[in-house]
Amino acid sequence: MTNKGEKLLRSRFQKPLAKLTKEFTASIPFDWRLYRQDITGSIAHVRMLTRQAIITQENADLILSGLMSIHEEIDNGVFDFKIELEDIHMNIESRLFEKIGDVAGQLHTGRSRNDQISLDMRLYMKEAINQTIIRLVEVQKVLLYLAEENIEVIMPGYTHLQKAQPILFPHYLLAYFEMMSRDIERFQSCLKRTDVLPLGSGALAGVTYSIDRDFLARELELNHISKNSIDAVSDRDFVLEYESNAAIAMMHLSRFAEEVIIFSSAEFGFWEIDEAYATTSSIMPQKKNPDVAELIRGKTGRVYGSLVSLLTVMKGLPLAYNRDMQEDKQFLFDVVDTLLSCLEIFSGMIRTLHINAETMHKASIGNYTLATDIADYLVRKGLSFRDAHNIVGKLVQYAASEGKNFSEMSLDEYRSFSTLFSTEIYDITVETSVADRNIPGGTAAQQVKEAIARAKEDLKLVNPS
Amino acid sequence: MTNKGEKLLRSRFQKPLAKLTKEFTASIPFDWRLYRQDITGSIAHVRMLTRQAIITQENADLILSGLMSIHEEIDNGVFDFKIELEDIHMNIESRLFEKIGDVAGQLHTGRSRNDQISLDMRLYMKEAINQTIIRLVEVQKVLLYLAEENIEVIMPGYTHLQKAQPILFPHYLLAYFEMMSRDIERFQSCLKRTDVLPLGSGALAGVTYSIDRDFLARELELNHISKNSIDAVSDRDFVLEYESNAAIAMMHLSRFAEEVIIFSSAEFGFWEIDEAYATTSSIMPQKKNPDVAELIRGKTGRVYGSLVSLLTVMKGLPLAYNRDMQEDKQFLFDVVDTLLSCLEIFSGMIRTLHINAETMHKASIGNYTLATDIADYLVRKGLSFRDAHNIVGKLVQYAASEGKNFSEMSLDEYRSFSTLFSTEIYDITVETSVADRNIPGGTAAQQVKEAIARAKEDLKLVNPS
Amino acid sequence: MTNKGEKLLRSRFQKPLAKLTKEFTASIPFDWRLYRQDITGSIAHVRMLTRQAIITQENADLILSGLMSIHEEIDNGVFDFKIELEDIHMNIESRLFEKIGDVAGQLHTGRSRNDQISLDMRLYMKEAINQTIIRLVEVQKVLLYLAEENIEVIMPGYTHLQKAQPILFPHYLLAYFEMMSRDIERFQSCLKRTDVLPLGSGALAGVTYSIDRDFLARELELNHISKNSIDAVSDRDFVLEYESNAAIAMMHLSRFAEEVIIFSSAEFGFWEIDEAYATTSSIMPQKKNPDVAELIRGKTGRVYGSLVSLLTVMKGLPLAYNRDMQEDKQFLFDVVDTLLSCLEIFSGMIRTLHINAETMHKASIGNYTLATDIADYLVRKGLSFRDAHNIVGKLVQYAASEGKNFSEMSLDEYRSFSTLFSTEIYDITVETSVADRNIPGGTAAQQVKEAIARAKEDLKLVNPS
Amino acid sequence: MTNKGEKLLRSRFQKPLAKLTKEFTASIPFDWRLYRQDITGSIAHVRMLTRQAIITQENADLILSGLMSIHEEIDNGVFDFKIELEDIHMNIESRLFEKIGDVAGQLHTGRSRNDQISLDMRLYMKEAINQTIIRLVEVQKVLLYLAEENIEVIMPGYTHLQKAQPILFPHYLLAYFEMMSRDIERFQSCLKRTDVLPLGSGALAGVTYSIDRDFLARELELNHISKNSIDAVSDRDFVLEYESNAAIAMMHLSRFAEEVIIFSSAEFGFWEIDEAYATTSSIMPQKKNPDVAELIRGKTGRVYGSLVSLLTVMKGLPLAYNRDMQEDKQFLFDVVDTLLSCLEIFSGMIRTLHINAETMHKASIGNYTLATDIADYLVRKGLSFRDAHNIVGKLVQYAASEGKNFSEMSLDEYRSFSTLFSTEIYDITVETSVADRNIPGGTAAQQVKEAIARAKEDLKLVNPS
Repeated sequence: MTNKGEKLLRSRFQKPLAKLTKEFTASIPFDWRLYRQDITGSIAHVRMLTRQAIITQENADLILSGLMSIHEEIDNGVFDFKIELEDIHMNIESRLFEKIGDVAGQLHTGRSRNDQISLDMRLYMKEAINQTIIRLVEVQKVLLYLAEENIEVIMPGYTHLQKAQPILFPHYLLAYFEMMSRDIERFQSCLKRTDVLPLGSGALAGVTYSIDRDFLARELELNHISKNSIDAVSDRDFVLEYESNAAIAMMHLSRFAEEVIIFSSAEFGFWEIDEAYATTSSIMPQKKNPDVAELIRGKTGRVYGSLVSLLTVMKGLPLAYNRDMQEDKQFLFDVVDTLLSCLEIFSGMIRTLHINAETMHKASIGNYTLATDIADYLVRKGLSFRDAHNIVGKLVQYAASEGKNFSEMSLDEYRSFSTLFSTEIYDITVETSVADRNIPGGTAAQQVKEAIARAKEDLKLVNPS
Repeated sequence: MTNKGEKLLRSRFQKPLAKLTKEFTASIPFDWRLYRQDITGSIAHVRMLTRQAIITQENADLILSGLMSIHEEIDNGVFDFKIELEDIHMNIESRLFEKIGDVAGQLHTGRSRNDQISLDMRLYMKEAINQTIIRLVEVQKVLLYLAEENIEVIMPGYTHLQKAQPILFPHYLLAYFEMMSRDIERFQSCLKRTDVLPLGSGALAGVTYSIDRDFLARELELNHISKNSIDAVSDRDFVLEYESNAAIAMMHLSRFAEEVIIFSSAEFGFWEIDEAYATTSSIMPQKKNPDVAELIRGKTGRVYGSLVSLLTVMKGLPLAYNRDMQEDKQFLFDVVDTLLSCLEIFSGMIRTLHINAETMHKASIGNYTLATDIADYLVRKGLSFRDAHNIVGKLVQYAASEGKNFSEMSLDEYRSFSTLFSTEIYDITVETSVADRNIPGGTAAQQVKEAIARAKEDLKLVNPS
Repeated sequence: MTNKGEKLLRSRFQKPLAKLTKEFTASIPFDWRLYRQDITGSIAHVRMLTRQAIITQENADLILSGLMSIHEEIDNGVFDFKIELEDIHMNIESRLFEKIGDVAGQLHTGRSRNDQISLDMRLYMKEAINQTIIRLVEVQKVLLYLAEENIEVIMPGYTHLQKAQPILFPHYLLAYFEMMSRDIERFQSCLKRTDVLPLGSGALAGVTYSIDRDFLARELELNHISKNSIDAVSDRDFVLEYESNAAIAMMHLSRFAEEVIIFSSAEFGFWEIDEAYATTSSIMPQKKNPDVAELIRGKTGRVYGSLVSLLTVMKGLPLAYNRDMQEDKQFLFDVVDTLLSCLEIFSGMIRTLHINAETMHKASIGNYTLATDIADYLVRKGLSFRDAHNIVGKLVQYAASEGKNFSEMSLDEYRSFSTLFSTEIYDITVETSVADRNIPGGTAAQQVKEAIARAKEDLKLVNPS
Repeated sequence: MTNKGEKLLRSRFQKPLAKLTKEFTASIPFDWRLYRQDITGSIAHVRMLTRQAIITQENADLILSGLMSIHEEIDNGVFDFKIELEDIHMNIESRLFEKIGDVAGQLHTGRSRNDQISLDMRLYMKEAINQTIIRLVEVQKVLLYLAEENIEVIMPGYTHLQKAQPILFPHYLLAYFEMMSRDIERFQSCLKRTDVLPLGSGALAGVTYSIDRDFLARELELNHISKNSIDAVSDRDFVLEYESNAAIAMMHLSRFAEEVIIFSSAEFGFWEIDEAYATTSSIMPQKKNPDVAELIRGKTGRVYGSLVSLLTVMKGLPLAYNRDMQEDKQFLFDVVDTLLSCLEIFSGMIRTLHINAETMHKASIGNYTLATDIADYLVRKGLSFRDAHNIVGKLVQYAASEGKNFSEMSLDEYRSFSTLFSTEIYDITVETSVADRNIPGGTAAQQVKEAIARAKEDLKLVNPS
């Protein structure tokens, strides 16, 4: 019975499938990964069929023990996956025939591969979402750890990659914490629309057997049952939603990765990547390259591409199931694997960054980063902000042409731009600049410490499984 | 004062902007659409500054009346937008100078264009989300209307565009109802992450003024304040999330549009598009073309492209604001306009479809659509499903070669495949097939009626505000 | 020497790579596929180094025989690829050390992995392009075969999936022939920019050894040498260009696939897919599904996604090599594999289509497909085309309301719309309609036969290798 | 006659188009841009119809003078485009009726909007391609100008944004010259497939009139006539190809833009953007931001998105014309406008960069950029490259731990790593490093000067129009 599955299904045809067609249409090279979910689903289905007296307890026991031994075979790598059996469903069913004979034929009662694969995907996705949230939380913990380790470190904040204003390094880290909090929210939201039992939908119209869908949902720990059988077998929203969320999450990582790369250049030197995460060159023996960060940045494109793939696949498909939808799997698996591995290595890479606090601090002083503070000073002296901005702009032009820093300018030089300037102007430093932004969400140490404390509380509430 | 705004800002430079640069960088050709949001934000900002005694009541009154008269000018189309003033913020601020003189310079106290544009975008998005949900609900109501109008109509259900099983037409319509319910959920979820006040974040580090962010949030009816100033000015997640959701929603519409096109072909003939939604040809006078459905299908690509654009733009951007992010606006506006107009015309187009119930019913009978029911019949007679499937497959092969329908085969012919067949076999019809799928989510009339009732209840709960 | 390669390279570091980093950065799981190209390149490199007296003949012989025996090991599946050796280059080099000892260290003289991988990719791509063209030509031959087999078959031509005008089926087939001719042109054009030797570029600046680049180009049958070393190691245009061309080629296939699906529906019935290319359902025994066509249509999304991936990866990368670029490989391999397999099975699927010529012909008659011909008739009688179009539009409206075809209308009925009508009107048939479009590129049999003849000539000129 | 066009076409219907449908389907808001092409095409068409005696010379003269006066009206901004007339074709045709009466009805003889719009697009594209090539050549000239102006400037070459090896700044510039040469090649190649006359294809099957297609091609300066009428009206390959090429060209610009941004940061300081291309901040008066470069980088996403849009639109469309294809225009226009404006401003921005040659040179010295040269030195002394690489790696590790540059190390220190070192080691400098890479495509001054000379010759051969 080399291909019982195939033969059974194709009784309507006279010809066998062309070998080329078999290879082209087979999904077993990738959907074997769903074997746990597939067998879990089948076990629940058999229990339900028994409970509903659709199959006998005796036959159910045979099927269940067959399924469990197949599970073990696959776990142990001794299962022989066959391309001619097309997919994970038929590979398992066909093996069941080998093991227990014709009773195996009862397993598919009241079920279609259309609702079966939807179930498998949903069970897989639930695990994937939980894993993703766990990994995001790990990154968040590393960010908080780094923030607390470097609680006093001042660095230049950038806009347009030009120095803008001094900020606390922990404040910078918390910006990423916020992004990941939103990521987690999105994955949690997507979970609701994944956590749905499709069994009972049959091929598309529902089944004629007295299936107990609520029992199935309880057995499989799914919180909802699908409301429309046609939709249930046509819907891949939950995959698209995971991929959209993954694309945004990777975008966040890519931004940090870009900064890992730029800030570890010789020219910036804000931090150094630990050797465990750095590579060298086959020809230039001095090189210490941030390959991990570069790959994370690059893999963002990979995840974007997968999202585009599935959106394209689903566009304009008439209801209900179409074989195009088989293309959802490889890309979903790749997105999940990519996001999980990127998050994992990202945690390690940033936890071990060697922070050059002094370089950061020094960089925060130059290039007139206090210009806004000086304008604000003039506002407090009575100018409108626009006038103050105007004066400080001229001041900067003058200072730059003289090659001086703010602190190197004399009071007379200051006063030639506005008589509102007094010696207080020399009290404005990167430290006061940071401390003065003492507003909720601002970079003052007090605010940042409170933000860290709140973040820790928030993390306790995330309960991925 | 042709370009006071530009001059004021550029005191740091000796040279003016090149004309080319002005045109290339200006966002006013598209961001003028945010004028309501921008002025609303400025009004709240001024009120707060007054309350915090940062500016006097007198000056505030001047600014507020100036802003309101500018609002009116734009409403009435008499405002002169200037490219050299770069964006909506500077156009309004510069006009304010013209109207009230140097007091205008106080408006930008404690604010940066970075947090200002984030506010404008968020206020715009809140409206867009609400409008989107309203339009989705409208489509859902049309679906329910059509379902009730055609409550008894049977049509063939398809998989692979091959006839699969008979289904109720209302059941088919409810599949789309489910998709749109998920769309609504997603937009509602996205609303939470949009509904956030960024003001107070300044350029990136927070401001040095005693801004009352909670007051601002209340004034602007925003439910949250941003937690991190750097993130607040760098974040476009809410735009990406809207666009992702829009892409999925358009995908749903594109599937229905495909069916509008296929089902209104001469060959299917399941429905006819109302003339108000049909076009003809410049050369072929007989043509009645489903252009509206085609354009909806096509515009799906448009929305996908916008999502790809912004994902690409945001990839690898270092913190905080970068000018690349200006590219978010045109595409967002286009996505919102596209989705809203597609939903609006979609409602009209499907509400006025001329349903050919008889053609549908007739189509549901041929091509052995009852094969599954016959297999289920054999299962009830004691066969395993696989054996039953096998027998019916052969039956179909035989019948097709004889050119007969199931109903045209004699009992003897049936029994030559299995002696389990009896005259009951002739009682299986498309009507019984539909009725037998009496399981939650199934196509039986009882289930569909309950689903419609539940859907109506659910609709009452959606309250887009 | 488990990881000699790794150790040798990392003498600059004290710490080893983290295990996680090794797994994350390793490309050997996919770039092993380049082993033939890599060894071919190394052989040419060694020959050149010997010729230039950079290494001795004796050492060269050792290295060459080592490389050849490694080639054999990989061919025979007995080579042990090691993740810790990162990529195909280091896996081979490290094995060479095992085989021939320290002489192996001379192989990498005057070469970097940056120019080496560029070479490997270019050699791979040249093969891929040639294979692609061969497969496209195969499809074109099948189209010509089908065109000649069905030279007289008339079918309805569609616009907007509504019947437009009668056309010859071979004319329809030749439309796809044209698309593929453009595909071939594009791949040939891309070949020119692929066919370039990057060796000699070193890491990015060129090498200090007296490398003979022209000799290398000749040995490797490459027609050009790269003109700028920085560009040579940074350039992935040739990959992007292949992927763009592949996206367009898949788009073409997806259009035909859509028609395979629609035209093999029960409602159209223009053709039937051969059983060797059709699948059935696990639950509905009557189903005959066009899965191959659906998968081709779906895989279009896959190829689009890969293009988006690499475009995203390359965006904004500073010169020269960045590790992000490693992400080019898996997607390129997938695009090549996908396109080649789709083209192969597409040929088979369409060659074996069972054409229902009679159904096609019958469909071409109904639904007023002759309306344009009737308008043209009136133009020949002296009306302007717009007036003629107007009259025939009314005629169609009348006929449709009467439920009549054109041929069923009386002359009086015709003449009530225009007295220009005479009995000649009944001579207008789908046959004359087709024959009258006797203009270069038109559907008249004479034109189509000439087009077939020309196409055959053109095919002779395509010489992929 | 407010909407003669609409009324004339819709004689087949009883109902008018819904207002909503008119607005939704109208393309006139964007396709008015094709008016020159449309009228040019119509003029050629009328001349041909006259020549073929299909219309009289007298009528032709009327039509031609009408068309020319319409052209003038649009040129002068006094033409009243009407949404209810749907598109540019019907707007012009309807106005022609107003001007010359019913003779206007002869214009559309032997033509359909399907072949007409294809012609308009092709004529537009030919211009766009030529403009694009002209702009690319301008950028190339600026690159050569900069290269010659800075012929001796040495800078560090980077890989992974870590200093790799010293290079000549002109060599770096020429890398971009190469990219743009490939861009030009691609646009030239695409031109061949654009330069095709579709007229004569009619709606899809060819026309019944004795159209002289070769005459039309000559009149319109098109080099080819389309070979298959169905393909001619279904084909948008030329648009996709332009957009693919534009995406790659923008990717090139985005890489340079990234470097403009990074190299003009305070930390790198390799160059400064001219004030004419720099902006400042509304709040931080010291800022000098590279907005132009950021927008170019950002607009890359815009072009990618447009490509994705059209690929998505075209996927799975059955032949021949479908209204989805109307979505090609806005995105194409946007891609052309974006690419042309980015190229234009890019030329200006880089031509005016203030190069800090000294900073570049200084940066090229530190961070062990000569490590490869030292390894090559050891190879020349007899070591294998791998052994040399190994030794220099240790040398770097030692030097870094001592905080010394190569030049600061004593000969004894060198010799403790290898006794092959002698005082010659101090002769290795960034100057010798550059000079030693004297291989075609390498960074040695001799090679670079030859490359510049060759580039100038090549430029003379590009003859865009």
